[in-house]
Amino acid sequence: MKGFAMLGAGKTGWIEKSRPVCGALDAIIRPVAVSPCTSDVHTVWEGALGERKDMILGHEAVGEVVEVGSLVRDFAPGDRVIVTAITPDWGSEAAQRGFAMHAGGMLAGWKFSNYKDGVFAEFFHVNEADANLARLPDDLDPGTACMLCDMMPTGFHAAELADIQFGESVCVIGIGPVGLMAVRACVLRGAGDVFCVGTRKVCMDAAKQYGATDFLSYKNGDLAEQILDRTKGKGVDKVIVAGGNADTFDAAIRMLKPGGIVANVNYLGSGDYVKLPRAAWGCGMAHKQLRGGLMPGGRLRAERLLRLIETGRVDPSLLLTHKFYGFSHVEQALYLMKDKTPDLIKPVVYLA
Amino acid sequence: MKGFAMLGAGKTGWIEKSRPVCGALDAIIRPVAVSPCTSDVHTVWEGALGERKDMILGHEAVGEVVEVGSLVRDFAPGDRVIVTAITPDWGSEAAQRGFAMHAGGMLAGWKFSNYKDGVFAEFFHVNEADANLARLPDDLDPGTACMLCDMMPTGFHAAELADIQFGESVCVIGIGPVGLMAVRACVLRGAGDVFCVGTRKVCMDAAKQYGATDFLSYKNGDLAEQILDRTKGKGVDKVIVAGGNADTFDAAIRMLKPGGIVANVNYLGSGDYVKLPRAAWGCGMAHKQLRGGLMPGGRLRAERLLRLIETGRVDPSLLLTHKFYGFSHVEQALYLMKDKTPDLIKPVVYLA
Amino acid sequence: MKGFAMLGAGKTGWIEKSRPVCGALDAIIRPVAVSPCTSDVHTVWEGALGERKDMILGHEAVGEVVEVGSLVRDFAPGDRVIVTAITPDWGSEAAQRGFAMHAGGMLAGWKFSNYKDGVFAEFFHVNEADANLARLPDDLDPGTACMLCDMMPTGFHAAELADIQFGESVCVIGIGPVGLMAVRACVLRGAGDVFCVGTRKVCMDAAKQYGATDFLSYKNGDLAEQILDRTKGKGVDKVIVAGGNADTFDAAIRMLKPGGIVANVNYLGSGDYVKLPRAAWGCGMAHKQLRGGLMPGGRLRAERLLRLIETGRVDPSLLLTHKFYGFSHVEQALYLMKDKTPDLIKPVVYLA
Amino acid sequence: MKGFAMLGAGKTGWIEKSRPVCGALDAIIRPVAVSPCTSDVHTVWEGALGERKDMILGHEAVGEVVEVGSLVRDFAPGDRVIVTAITPDWGSEAAQRGFAMHAGGMLAGWKFSNYKDGVFAEFFHVNEADANLARLPDDLDPGTACMLCDMMPTGFHAAELADIQFGESVCVIGIGPVGLMAVRACVLRGAGDVFCVGTRKVCMDAAKQYGATDFLSYKNGDLAEQILDRTKGKGVDKVIVAGGNADTFDAAIRMLKPGGIVANVNYLGSGDYVKLPRAAWGCGMAHKQLRGGLMPGGRLRAERLLRLIETGRVDPSLLLTHKFYGFSHVEQALYLMKDKTPDLIKPVVYLA
Repeated sequence: MKGFAMLGAGKTGWIEKSRPVCGALDAIIRPVAVSPCTSDVHTVWEGALGERKDMILGHEAVGEVVEVGSLVRDFAPGDRVIVTAITPDWGSEAAQRGFAMHAGGMLAGWKFSNYKDGVFAEFFHVNEADANLARLPDDLDPGTACMLCDMMPTGFHAAELADIQFGESVCVIGIGPVGLMAVRACVLRGAGDVFCVGTRKVCMDAAKQYGATDFLSYKNGDLAEQILDRTKGKGVDKVIVAGGNADTFDAAIRMLKPGGIVANVNYLGSGDYVKLPRAAWGCGMAHKQLRGGLMPGGRLRAERLLRLIETGRVDPSLLLTHKFYGFSHVEQALYLMKDKTPDLIKPVVYLA
Repeated sequence: MKGFAMLGAGKTGWIEKSRPVCGALDAIIRPVAVSPCTSDVHTVWEGALGERKDMILGHEAVGEVVEVGSLVRDFAPGDRVIVTAITPDWGSEAAQRGFAMHAGGMLAGWKFSNYKDGVFAEFFHVNEADANLARLPDDLDPGTACMLCDMMPTGFHAAELADIQFGESVCVIGIGPVGLMAVRACVLRGAGDVFCVGTRKVCMDAAKQYGATDFLSYKNGDLAEQILDRTKGKGVDKVIVAGGNADTFDAAIRMLKPGGIVANVNYLGSGDYVKLPRAAWGCGMAHKQLRGGLMPGGRLRAERLLRLIETGRVDPSLLLTHKFYGFSHVEQALYLMKDKTPDLIKPVVYLA
Repeated sequence: MKGFAMLGAGKTGWIEKSRPVCGALDAIIRPVAVSPCTSDVHTVWEGALGERKDMILGHEAVGEVVEVGSLVRDFAPGDRVIVTAITPDWGSEAAQRGFAMHAGGMLAGWKFSNYKDGVFAEFFHVNEADANLARLPDDLDPGTACMLCDMMPTGFHAAELADIQFGESVCVIGIGPVGLMAVRACVLRGAGDVFCVGTRKVCMDAAKQYGATDFLSYKNGDLAEQILDRTKGKGVDKVIVAGGNADTFDAAIRMLKPGGIVANVNYLGSGDYVKLPRAAWGCGMAHKQLRGGLMPGGRLRAERLLRLIETGRVDPSLLLTHKFYGFSHVEQALYLMKDKTPDLIKPVVYLA
Repeated sequence: MKGFAMLGAGKTGWIEKSRPVCGALDAIIRPVAVSPCTSDVHTVWEGALGERKDMILGHEAVGEVVEVGSLVRDFAPGDRVIVTAITPDWGSEAAQRGFAMHAGGMLAGWKFSNYKDGVFAEFFHVNEADANLARLPDDLDPGTACMLCDMMPTGFHAAELADIQFGESVCVIGIGPVGLMAVRACVLRGAGDVFCVGTRKVCMDAAKQYGATDFLSYKNGDLAEQILDRTKGKGVDKVIVAGGNADTFDAAIRMLKPGGIVANVNYLGSGDYVKLPRAAWGCGMAHKQLRGGLMPGGRLRAERLLRLIETGRVDPSLLLTHKFYGFSHVEQALYLMKDKTPDLIKPVVYLA
């Protein structure tokens, strides 16, 4: 079968591979819509996951089941399904501890284009199909549904990590597709003021529709000072980091109230250390928590977030600024994600 | 001063009392808008709080500060303020345990028309003013702000007790003003499907605007069976009880998934026992939690919920179906609450 | 193979059955030590689980692996293992929700002698072996290890449900083997005063060793009044129900502070309703939570509790008042559990 | 009155000051036993709190009430009391948010020798006496009770921040008096393996008595590697930082499992940044939480921890390696704390 792969560091291309084999608990899926992710860019051009050779890329796909293993009960060939980017081994020690995304090791629930070939292929493999697939409703656009694979669960996890309470203020740093989903998630956890750090108009417009109340820009100086200015020196209750880099946490801690939480869902691809300002962190005594984690994956999660789309609580289709038709456009979509044009939030490629 | 009081069981009327005295931490308030509550009805006609004689009624008011004690720092005469129905003693053992509403004894954070005269008076007394008053914004209608005293904090507490998670389903039993606020709160905690039990058109219309997705009626048979029918036998993740009586919990437990929560914010005025169906409660093994509690009061709570109004997350003015002007209309408003006309959600009386 | 079974309501006996079949994820175990449980008594003589015919009894066993399925990676024939009474399907919807014990339906994680034959047999079947078995250390007595199957995880879950905080007071109602484990668990969650309801000397002695500070008896009148007497009218922070029946909750609620929790781990075999006293429950407003649930099962849980034995935090061997040697004694041990002699806490049968 | 003070940076001495004035909610206390703290050392010789001139030192004291304000109800002159090092303003915004220790600003619940004179004086002042004093039992040694002011609440808070679960493994970095209390607290929250970093014999002996299972030394190389060696590469579930400095978090993060928590209770007196190793922190994705905070203060906290002493759960008297008699010895005790002799855990000075 054909797939679009990372051939080596900084190099991509189409390759031929044999179709993956279906184990007793597994399923083989033919993608119907896929979307490239900033993580794919990190993987290929920034060496995020280390050396990879001829590894098929992609971890966001909805598709059609073409084969299931002998122990799979809930899905059959022909079913259209949503596949979460993180597909845990549910019986593992980490899953029993409540951290299924780290089943088999730190971040190891993230298997696509990491431990095995990804979804930019004619067929791809899903482990524990009954636990990691969710049914795609007939009336949901597959491109929109693609946002359930990673953007929406990651953004919504940010609000969970931040443990937003009714009426709290939050600053969302970074309003790309994940940050935008975090904005909506904050509103749907009860946030009052939602300050957003971002400057691109297309993103700001979407953020407003999702409920953002105010905007800041890196261009106007230190972010923490801007927040302290606008909050009469009090700072915000919570900070979500959905962009920036390892240095972003300095401002995040400084703009936070004692007792607050900084919640990170941004993959930090470089830098030796994440640095917290000692004094603003209350010399270790301020109850300013730092959290960060990979999205939870799996069937229930996808079904629940899907329900939020179906009941009209969130419309992820606002993210889809660029639509392509045909498998061959995967390459173009990925390069678009790499080059980030001013009008881009997220591209999607419809295959069928 | 003049006040509208419970003269004795089942009897109300206007009385004269001396103006309350202001302690060092306290404030004296002149009401600007007040609203009668179903609890006032319970108190007078159902003996909810036991015998009361010449006790001025009312616990929902916004007003103007006319006097403050020597230790009050943040408020001064002339300030317009929101007063929460529950005004805790913040240093108490219960408050230090996290249950300020029970400061001084079970439910004892509820002082108005319970431990002291209420707000249907020319002046009323607030303990620990710095901790129990919130500033009323100039551009917020005092009638709408009145909903911050009890209706909104109580309804929102229901969603907190139910610990709603993203995409969960919930059934709200009872959609009077508190239940309606609970509907909105569920949506703002991330609920997907929100089933509502209620039949009055005015309430159903408001519920839809707040995000309800489906309606049930007592008239169509057992509530649990209706829910199980609509959820393919699975039941709902959470149930909020904002109406009914001590018998309501039978259906609530039966419509709940294992691992779910029943959250009560309805004052249960009669009956010896709240009964849970043993078998449907999993013989004590189903992890079906039962919670119920008085709203949290105090300044921070009011300020945070106020922020939800100011950022447009919730519009409690939808509740205000009946508006009266002038202190003398308090009586009429209370009787309206007692007689509950079909078009009533909540009355408010503007005094100034 | 031979097994000791419930032949029908109120009837037990030895039967022949074919050895269970091992699926790809499963294991077949030969028991090394087993222990009868009060639940077995409920099942046979009180119809707890409904009609059962020729169902092999028992759910507490440690044993030796004799066969594993093709997908099992961590265990092999010859391994000695602890098997938890609850063996969830870890990929299920309920497990993904955090309630693995209800995988497949309310209480359905409890499979032994419920959905399939139990452990009082020459061989028994365990689903998802990698996730539901824990290695038995060489130097741990198999009889003591049997307490890791049900008594210890159930008792310890009670303290988790009660969410004991440092220095809180708790009343443990019922100090049979589960209640005794709950006493120890409360101490190991930080409880201060641990009041115990029980009268048998052998149990009281064990309770003292586990850290109980005070004792009450049903024979001395209402339990709630006794607790209120000893706490100057304040009541206790938490109540654990590990004995009694559906009526026990009346006193439990009345002895509880506002903001407290009643945590049940007692299987309630009869009665239509669990009744909560409305007024003492604060008319639904007192934040007195009611919780109750089946123990969490699985490998991690067993490994963690095992670690508490190995580090000397708890010694469950104190429970083993009666030891039998040889498979045939299972019958005698079960009848002992049924007839409960004054010197009994828990019997164990060593098979090998 | 006389007091032992920080005269300026790096300088201490006895001074005369006027006796503090008692407000309506306050109390004036005459100390009966006091203990110097490492924080006093930080304050004087490391400039922890910034410039201070003629500020009386000390924040750990039990004493006798000599005067109370007009609004104090529960205490009277002659009462012997425990005073927590942190004495919050309970009605403040931070307290209503659940972070009373930050009432009035970050760390501002810590008032003694910070915002006002400390306890090394003939008399000292306590705000909100009803909420911040606890009764000293007649049969409790005042020196032992002094450990309830700071050492025990701080150490116990570490275990709370780490959210220890039954059978979890934890590494306690630093086993001075706070670390030792954290060890005991971990055991009393249900920890299995408790690894301790420390080398002084007197501390290791106490740690063993408190339930430590294993010891590590900085002298034997990287701490994280030592932990990974002893845990077969898995790491520990939780890390408590009760010693070291801003660089300690590097090893702490590296020895932690995904999903784990690092809980800090060590005052970090120097360094611009606390640095987390990016890769070991899972590039921000590992769910390795970082928490840290000042101890909760106040009456309820003291009463609850006191109950743990009275029920024999913890014996803080093991910490008291050096006892002095007479007010004048405060100086000697402080210098002992500064110079840390090998046989020192904690000194106490009895005044009466």
